[in-house]
Amino acid sequence: MKVNVAVVGATGLVGSMMLKVLSEKNFPIDKLYLFSSKKSAGSEVEYCGKKYTVEELNENSFEGKDIKIALFSAGGSVSEKYAPIAAKAGVTVIDNSSHFRMNPDVPLVVPEINPEDIKTNKGIIANPNCSTIQSVLPLKPIHDKYKIKRVIYSTYQSVSGSGVKGISDLEEGTQLAYKYPIRNNCIPQIDVFMDNGYTKEEMKMIDETKKILHDDIRVTATTVRVPVKTSHSVSINVETEKPFEIEDVKKIIADYPGMDLQDDIENEIYPMAITSAGKNEVFVGRIRRDFTVDNGLNLWCCADNIRKGAATNAVQIALKVLEG
Amino acid sequence: MKVNVAVVGATGLVGSMMLKVLSEKNFPIDKLYLFSSKKSAGSEVEYCGKKYTVEELNENSFEGKDIKIALFSAGGSVSEKYAPIAAKAGVTVIDNSSHFRMNPDVPLVVPEINPEDIKTNKGIIANPNCSTIQSVLPLKPIHDKYKIKRVIYSTYQSVSGSGVKGISDLEEGTQLAYKYPIRNNCIPQIDVFMDNGYTKEEMKMIDETKKILHDDIRVTATTVRVPVKTSHSVSINVETEKPFEIEDVKKIIADYPGMDLQDDIENEIYPMAITSAGKNEVFVGRIRRDFTVDNGLNLWCCADNIRKGAATNAVQIALKVLEG
Repeated sequence: MKVNVAVVGATGLVGSMMLKVLSEKNFPIDKLYLFSSKKSAGSEVEYCGKKYTVEELNENSFEGKDIKIALFSAGGSVSEKYAPIAAKAGVTVIDNSSHFRMNPDVPLVVPEINPEDIKTNKGIIANPNCSTIQSVLPLKPIHDKYKIKRVIYSTYQSVSGSGVKGISDLEEGTQLAYKYPIRNNCIPQIDVFMDNGYTKEEMKMIDETKKILHDDIRVTATTVRVPVKTSHSVSINVETEKPFEIEDVKKIIADYPGMDLQDDIENEIYPMAITSAGKNEVFVGRIRRDFTVDNGLNLWCCADNIRKGAATNAVQIALKVLEG
Repeated sequence: MKVNVAVVGATGLVGSMMLKVLSEKNFPIDKLYLFSSKKSAGSEVEYCGKKYTVEELNENSFEGKDIKIALFSAGGSVSEKYAPIAAKAGVTVIDNSSHFRMNPDVPLVVPEINPEDIKTNKGIIANPNCSTIQSVLPLKPIHDKYKIKRVIYSTYQSVSGSGVKGISDLEEGTQLAYKYPIRNNCIPQIDVFMDNGYTKEEMKMIDETKKILHDDIRVTATTVRVPVKTSHSVSINVETEKPFEIEDVKKIIADYPGMDLQDDIENEIYPMAITSAGKNEVFVGRIRRDFTVDNGLNLWCCADNIRKGAATNAVQIALKVLEG
């Protein structure tokens, strides 16, 4: 059964990757509609060998087209305005912006973790923050078996998380996405600062981890932009309630869907940005006991932030929606 | 009173910076002796407008020269062999290698923190690991006032920590210092792996923090190489025994010697690699409460790893030695 699909923000970095992943996964598309802002409207985009003209998004874009699924990646304000319009027109929106993520009426989904939440949707399903997706995946099997008490994230986030402007800042030395040069630098600020001293990115990781794992785990975070084009890395310190064996932690991560264990220190094998770029999986390694608490461990995970951190996760949600 | 000074490893990245810092601090040098391996011997190095020929280091290099202080930065094996020879000849060695750092007979010194330890030396004083120096400085006033229970480090370390080969790997795309490309990458391995799953760099940070602070603080670490030329950054999570006010933590760090508080989130001011490069201070910011434990805080610090992380700290020790 083929369905009509729309991509909103089709010319952006994530939107383009959504199209690529839809095609890689042979998503059963009947009619494909591509929408963008006025600025990009009229441009041509290829999908599976066929050319499509991108249309300007407006309030009637979803009317009378029998669109089953719309993947949104055009920023929070576009989602705020148009996702409810699409939902009202009978479309299931999978929204990559942060706008609806913490809305109690909107499920926040990593398909390997909480696919059942999809069923509670009222027309909008939120795709989590890129860093959150790759961090919460290794936490899930650990939490299920050993109950996590506390998590401390320090992130190493690539510039593609800021779209084409971020890539330009790294590759051309511009300052379009960032206030400071990113070349030869680490910038300990992603998104704006909140009153509590944390950035919005840090609060996303803290809040979204709890929502996805359905538990009030204690989480803190420091999020940092690094001069890397693609793939985020995260250093994660975890404390669990129940004791574990490190070998079992490695096993339950290796066995969990969506993750690849890369943890062979004898051969200096561990996850890295360059080896995870272009892949759909989350790569986990450097798993070792943290000797400073009874049940502590450190781990390191990498993932392509445009794929699993955004487009791949959204398309996986869309596939689950189709399965019903 | 001027003294005779030797620099061992004078042509390396740290050795060159030692000469620069000696000159910046108007170190009272009578005669200056520069030593290197056979490979670099014979090359000319300028110091305060005068040219010096670098001599090959040998077992008699320290004989009959009345050398008061020798700054060593030529690797662990050179220090292992020649530092005791120099010490026996009456020289006070300040050694930048890791070889003697955990030796109970060798003081490990950050001059702002434990200058009194210098007096216990038996001819050799160790300069701590670069990441340790910049991390332990902000911890010191916090520990003095609020007693630190636990520390979790995640580092963002620049390629100059691997010398000219590291810089080449970043700037020329070679793989001289690292097994994997460092461009567009984060490598979660610095130095070799130990049996416990930690790298030697991680164990240095763990062990040296305790030795410098004279306390058995619980410390864990993840150390990571990032594609930055100069300056290390460290994300530090701290838990203290006594309760604190965040504003007081900022104040005691700002008041402590050797550190600059850069913590004005309203104006997006915080420490960064690019702004700390070329400076002798440690820059500390992003100080905020970690709400997941009773007395927790997160902070971020940056420092020029070749200056405060190596050469500056060594020259500061040398100045203290002269003071007696």
